[in-house]
Formats: sequence, structure tokens, C-alpha cells
Amino acid sequence: MDLKQNISLAHGSGGKLTHDLIKDLFLEKFKNPILSPLTDSAILNINGAYLAFTTDTYVVKPLFFPGGDIGKLAVCGTINDLAVMGANPICISCGLVIEEGFEYKILEQIIDSMGKTALDTGVQVVTGDTKVVEKGGCDGIFINTSGIGLVKSECRLLPEDIQVGDKIILNGPIGDHGIAVLSARENLGLSSEIKSDCAPLWDLISQVLDTSKNGEAKASHYNKIKFMRDITRGGLATILNEIVDEKSFGIRLKEKDIPVREEVKGACEILGFDPLYIANEGKVVLVVASEDAPLVLREMRRHPLGEDAQIIGEIVSEPEGKVCLKTLAGGTRIVDMMTRDQLPRIC
Amino acid sequence: MDLKQNISLAHGSGGKLTHDLIKDLFLEKFKNPILSPLTDSAILNINGAYLAFTTDTYVVKPLFFPGGDIGKLAVCGTINDLAVMGANPICISCGLVIEEGFEYKILEQIIDSMGKTALDTGVQVVTGDTKVVEKGGCDGIFINTSGIGLVKSECRLLPEDIQVGDKIILNGPIGDHGIAVLSARENLGLSSEIKSDCAPLWDLISQVLDTSKNGEAKASHYNKIKFMRDITRGGLATILNEIVDEKSFGIRLKEKDIPVREEVKGACEILGFDPLYIANEGKVVLVVASEDAPLVLREMRRHPLGEDAQIIGEIVSEPEGKVCLKTLAGGTRIVDMMTRDQLPRIC
Repeated sequence: MDLKQNISLAHGSGGKLTHDLIKDLFLEKFKNPILSPLTDSAILNINGAYLAFTTDTYVVKPLFFPGGDIGKLAVCGTINDLAVMGANPICISCGLVIEEGFEYKILEQIIDSMGKTALDTGVQVVTGDTKVVEKGGCDGIFINTSGIGLVKSECRLLPEDIQVGDKIILNGPIGDHGIAVLSARENLGLSSEIKSDCAPLWDLISQVLDTSKNGEAKASHYNKIKFMRDITRGGLATILNEIVDEKSFGIRLKEKDIPVREEVKGACEILGFDPLYIANEGKVVLVVASEDAPLVLREMRRHPLGEDAQIIGEIVSEPEGKVCLKTLAGGTRIVDMMTRDQLPRIC
Repeated sequence: MDLKQNISLAHGSGGKLTHDLIKDLFLEKFKNPILSPLTDSAILNINGAYLAFTTDTYVVKPLFFPGGDIGKLAVCGTINDLAVMGANPICISCGLVIEEGFEYKILEQIIDSMGKTALDTGVQVVTGDTKVVEKGGCDGIFINTSGIGLVKSECRLLPEDIQVGDKIILNGPIGDHGIAVLSARENLGLSSEIKSDCAPLWDLISQVLDTSKNGEAKASHYNKIKFMRDITRGGLATILNEIVDEKSFGIRLKEKDIPVREEVKGACEILGFDPLYIANEGKVVLVVASEDAPLVLREMRRHPLGEDAQIIGEIVSEPEGKVCLKTLAGGTRIVDMMTRDQLPRIC
């Protein structure tokens, strides 16, 4: 038996150690064909209906931050994991672990925020569980939400169809969430307040899927959106590395086309972070057939959550399995998967 | 606004404060018709198929105890919440919160136990999430499992049909799990080792449902099993109080008919606990029409997890909304819902 290192913060980062843990332990012990694709949600065929099923636990610190709180995050995050599978979120669960002595009025604010976010997005919280651990047994409150969504019947995302020339589309600027949480946690006193982008993405995604089907493109159009993923822990760099991992193609990004707010850029420079690795909670990346990219981009920009959408790069033949960035300075560098956790407890 | 007390261990006990929290906060903020019945699982109608959906977080301490561990518990507990809705468990999720520095080999043992329990019961772990919090941010490991089950098409549990004369059936002795965990945690050195009853109940429940349908009884027989609930936190007393809460009937129990192992009785006497309030993880209570109770009892006893099944009491007309116990000594006492948490972190 391999002697594995004990669990470190990086195992929960969404980066390389998380992937190793999943491959070496979870896939090994839980092996089954539904889990193996490691998509954001499992897809189940129930009497001919395709259901997406996903789970996430939220341990963000602090509980409240500019643009959101742990309750809003717990609803949006799980909705987004369903949405990127082309699934209309139907219902979620709410599993709480609360520390003894936690203030009732804070709990009330969090549950209120969950309820409002769920109501706004047409999702019902249908089942729940509450555990209380003794003082010191956990840090305040952790929230697990699991969700079920109904996959749009015409929606077949086919990552295996990804080919050279396909475009990478991003719905807006990256890094807001991570910097907002860090700023609130460390009381950095950044001059301008950066707000988390925490938002439910189903409305945007649904609109793009519908228009691309019913609009100018042909009925089989869904096949041309080959992959969607919300970019959370590990940031854009990690998701893109997952797309090319062990594949016979790579990704080339253009730094000039990747939207990053000036305030986020500034904060990253001061703190020594790279926006490509910062967590987001309202961003989605799509891989789209080249000929359909303009239509998808136009449609995204018509939605408030996609008005800053950009084509940020494309699928290239080499280097295989790598993500390369053409920098503003004109050079090219490899963008690796995140190997350590630069920002723990960001979600 | 009511000034509510801050969160105490009793809010997570499954007893009265848990119920108050659910009614005053969760039902208020999440209000929807699926959540409101507060059954063990939500029932969803997806394209004509009835799905059960449930969630539970496991924070048991210690992680390993006689008869089980947190991994086995996390799979069995969620399977059982589906099973008591008449739902065949299909798949579960696995959401982990792990403390930085947690030993890899302990994690491996837990995941191995989850995998084996899932395999043994034909359930797949199809989606997951891992968060790591800094040292001291949580106590070792917490596991959330959410589950989806397919409700047997003929199974319609109708608690609203419960009537005077219906029998209360229990599948075996109570208190084993709580005492086993407490004994392992506090190193009580009880002379004989009491093992947790932690077990997946679907096989037993499914067999009882099938036989009662196909056997001697008529095809509509499922209606005669009016209610099922696994008895975990809060113990038998709490579940029975939930059945009669705000109803125009009560329950009368006979202490002599409630199975409790001698070792558990002894431990409870020493520790000052009442077995009626101790948690179980492999026990189910059924409310069955009087004329069908003998058949259901016989069928349960044919299964290894039901061989000590007993009719422990019945639905009575008064006192309304109360659970009464006819004691061994011949007296009668009211059995209340648990109001404090006598044994925290038992599941």
C-alpha cells in the first residue's frame, strides 16, 4: 500500500491534490459507471427522464461577505452544478452542522437568505437535517446542499466531440468571489469594495440553450455546445486543465481577452495571486463549435449575467493536454492545474 | 420578533427543540408543500415516477464503534430514510468536511466502509464533494449523504388513515446504537460489549411490503401499513410522539413488550438513561391495521433484521396526542418527546 500524506488544505482546493484524492480513493472505493465521468452532477435515467444529482458542502469564512453569504452561496452553488449539465434545478436539500452557542439571529439571516435565493430561482428546499456539535466541534456553521435537476430533453453535452478549433467562452470577469471573501476575512481594507459574483446561472444557461436550439441554428444545435462548467474552487485554470487532461488536444488562451476587473487585478498584484486560480461563484465556461461561437456569445451578452462574455481562447492541437496562455507581453506560458490551496474556505 | 435562544446541543437532538427549530424557522423560510409534511424523505413526482429524496449529515463521535463506523452509518442512515417511505434506494451522494491533518489511512478505512456498505445494499455513490477546513475548524470528519430512491409503485403510506386499534410494530431491541457509541466514546468499560444495530433496512422493509401485497392479504394491502419510520435520534419515544402530535388519538405502549437487551437495560440503569430515548440505527416502527398486524409481524420475524419483532402497543382514543406506557410495575406514565439532548453526536 502506498503511504499517502495526511489531509492538507490543498486536498480541498479543487486542484491537483483534490483530483488525486478522487482518483486514488473515491473512484477506487465507490467504483461505478455514473460516478466515473466526474462531471459536476451525476446523470441518472429514471423511467426515461434524465435527472442530474449533485452535492456540495459550504464552509466559507466569513459567513457574510460583499455580494453574498453562506446561505445564498449554498443555493447558487448547487443550482449551478445542475445548470452546467443542462438541467433545470427542481429541488435541493439543506443539511446543517451548527456549533453549540451559534447565534439564533445569524442562523435566521442565513436561512432567510437561502429561502429567498431558492424562491427567486424557482427551486424548492424539500428536505433537511440539522446536527449540532459541541462548542469548538466546528467553526460556526457548515451547509450541505444536494440538488436534483431535470435535464432538458434536447440537451446532450458531448465533451468527447471537442475538437481543434472549438472556442472557449466565458460569461464575465473572473476572481470577484475569491477576492471579496478574502477581503472580508482578512479585513484587507481594499480601497474599492469588490463584490462576490455569487449568482444562480440557470436562467442564463437556459436562455443560451433555448436560443441556440430555436434560433438561427439547426435543431441539433445543442450538440455544438459541447461542455459547460461553472468555475469555482481552483479557478479558470483548474477547470481548463480538467478539460484537456489526458486528451490529444490543448487549450490556448489569450490573456488580453480574459475579463478581470481592475480592482481584482490590483488586489491580486498586491497579494501575489493569479486571477486564473481565484474562485468564482457566478461564472461558467463553455466549449462551443467554432461556427456557433458567435451566436452563443451574442446570446450570452443579452443576459445580465453574461453581458461581459468573451471568447477567451480555443482548442488547439498542441501541446496536448496543456493549457497555454499568450500573455499581454507577447510571450506564452503553460498554465498548470493549481497544486496548493492559495485561498482556503472560499466556498 | 421573538428573541430565540442561541443554538444548543438539544437543537440537534431530534427532540422538542429540533422540532421547534424546524417549525419556527425552516418551514417558515422554506415554505413549500413538499417540505411541509416533514417525512423522512421528500416525495417528488418526476414524469410520473415517485422519487424519495433525503439528506443527513453524520457527526458521530468516535468515528469507529462496536458494530460500525461513520462510513457505514452514513450509508445505512440515508438508505433507511428512503426505505421507510417505501422507496428502493438507488443512489447516494457523499459530501465530506475533513479537518486539516486528518490521517489518510483513517479516511481510507471510512471510505472503504462506505463503499462496501453501498455495494452490499446495491446502492451507488454517484456524486461527491470534499472540503478541508483548517486544524480545529471541525472535529475530524463530518459526512453528508443525500439519497434518491424510487417509491414502489404500489406503496402508498397513508398516515391520515391511522385509527384507533391499529398496532405499533417494532423490528427488534432498542438502544443498542446509542449505548455502543457512548460506551466507545467515554470508555465506560461496560463488561459485555454492546454492538450498534447499524444496518440497512430496505431488504427487510421491501420483503414485508412485497409479502403483504402478494401473500394472503388483498392487493390493496399496502394501505394497511399506514406509517413507517426508522428510530434514530430522540429514540422510540420521540418518533411515537411525532405520530400522535396534534392528532385526535394517542398511543398506549406495554413496557413488557418493548424489546431491550439486558446489557442495554443495565447500562441505562447505571448511566441514568431511558432506553425509550436512546438512538438506534437499524430499527423501524410501523403502524399497521389491526387485522394485518399478525401477518406483518410473522413476515418481519422471517428476516434476520426482524427476528425479535414485537407488537409493542396500539393506537388508542385517549389521551389524545399523548404516548402512555403501561409499566412493568402495572402503573401508567406519559412518555414525552425528548426535551434535552442526553447523548450528543450519536449519529
